[in-house]
Amino acid sequence: MGFWGLEVKPGKPQPYSPQNEQGKLHLTQATLGAGLGNGKSVIQCSVGDKKPIYLCSLLPNKNECCPLNLEFDDGDEPVEFSVTGDRSIHLTGYLEAFDEEYDEDDD
Amino acid sequence: MGFWGLEVKPGKPQPYSPQNEQGKLHLTQATLGAGLGNGKSVIQCSVGDKKPIYLCSLLPNKNECCPLNLEFDDGDEPVEFSVTGDRSIHLTGYLEAFDEEYDEDDD
Amino acid sequence: MGFWGLEVKPGKPQPYSPQNEQGKLHLTQATLGAGLGNGKSVIQCSVGDKKPIYLCSLLPNKNECCPLNLEFDDGDEPVEFSVTGDRSIHLTGYLEAFDEEYDEDDD
Amino acid sequence: MGFWGLEVKPGKPQPYSPQNEQGKLHLTQATLGAGLGNGKSVIQCSVGDKKPIYLCSLLPNKNECCPLNLEFDDGDEPVEFSVTGDRSIHLTGYLEAFDEEYDEDDD
Amino acid sequence: MGFWGLEVKPGKPQPYSPQNEQGKLHLTQATLGAGLGNGKSVIQCSVGDKKPIYLCSLLPNKNECCPLNLEFDDGDEPVEFSVTGDRSIHLTGYLEAFDEEYDEDDD
Repeated sequence: MGFWGLEVKPGKPQPYSPQNEQGKLHLTQATLGAGLGNGKSVIQCSVGDKKPIYLCSLLPNKNECCPLNLEFDDGDEPVEFSVTGDRSIHLTGYLEAFDEEYDEDDD
Repeated sequence: MGFWGLEVKPGKPQPYSPQNEQGKLHLTQATLGAGLGNGKSVIQCSVGDKKPIYLCSLLPNKNECCPLNLEFDDGDEPVEFSVTGDRSIHLTGYLEAFDEEYDEDDD
Repeated sequence: MGFWGLEVKPGKPQPYSPQNEQGKLHLTQATLGAGLGNGKSVIQCSVGDKKPIYLCSLLPNKNECCPLNLEFDDGDEPVEFSVTGDRSIHLTGYLEAFDEEYDEDDD
Repeated sequence: MGFWGLEVKPGKPQPYSPQNEQGKLHLTQATLGAGLGNGKSVIQCSVGDKKPIYLCSLLPNKNECCPLNLEFDDGDEPVEFSVTGDRSIHLTGYLEAFDEEYDEDDD
Repeated sequence: MGFWGLEVKPGKPQPYSPQNEQGKLHLTQATLGAGLGNGKSVIQCSVGDKKPIYLCSLLPNKNECCPLNLEFDDGDEPVEFSVTGDRSIHLTGYLEAFDEEYDEDDD
């Protein structure tokens, strides 16, 4: 496991299902991607049919990165990340082992 | 559980009662919502009859998001989030299971 | 317990004695208060007779809030928070139960 | 163990293999290095053959440092840090002991 | 224990030896000190004979404070903090008890 990263492009939402991953995700940073667009880019997270919620808003040449602190664990519900604006946003963080409450064949 | 988000609009305070929630809330980010207003927006938190306290102050086109680090656990008192300014503020974070000190019917 | 907030005004230092509180304080944010002053405001913390140390420096219309990460536990020494500048600073965080090393009558 | 620091220069990628280190790395800050270049510098992290992901983007005279929160533990995969732009980026953090699940000869 | 603070002035490096302290240091913030200098100030940390590494870079009237996240524990190596630039930098954080693996005479 270890380092985790995902580039989310405008108009291309990315689903994230914690249960399908190798471990618990700590999502800790968002950084503006390459490009020439000067408008702001916003990354959103949505759950089911609910209205998307903004995670952070990045401004070219002013504030191009922002710390986050979100966790997505084994039994958590699936979400979708999407970007509005001209440029992609890079999400980074790290994966750690799920809590093994039933370590059957922990080798 | 997992991802948690709430949009707080100016003039529409949102009560938050930790006991009524599914888990312990880690409130970790505030981001300025959509709109054209250029003045700053401030999100406040108040407890009972006490004067509201500012959680953070967001400036359009300058600083549109800010990390927070607040926790609201099972036995904690109810609070109210409110926004002053032109634009809404999106709060995000994550829920984790309450500590089960008496796991009677933990299924 | 739960949410904790304190507004510190210029010229009105606020003592804080961890032992007199209901729990361990996690001080996690500072936000500039209301007002028209355009100069910077600095929040300081002092211990006993020692020279005050700056916790953070907030700039109106530029950087009006800043994450902090300080802890004040049961046996920690008393401190004093003070502000220099034109405007007050709002401190926020959360209280959690002190470690009970001797849970005599934990009901 | 304790403090950990690494300067990454443009065009000189730095591999990092968690298994070869003395402890688990908490990578917690990036700061722009010395120099006269005024363009932005971006630090990236790549794993295997995958496309590099941006960790943060630093702007001379505007935002020259940024908190990070990444962890690289014993069994995590090797990564490579690289910088694009005019100036180097200093990475800092701290090492703590790996979890010893089999403390055979813990002296 | 509790609150910890240190002002580091330009040209006056400050050694820090974790073993000589009362507890484990969590170094969590850097704030620009008083003065009229308008150039940036950088705080560095060095270990032994190694080249100093930048911890953060503060800009008067733009970004005067920055969160840090460094830990200095019992067995960690001594370091030296130094500042380059016109103004001092105030470091703050908190001390917590060292892990007592052998609590012989814990009173």
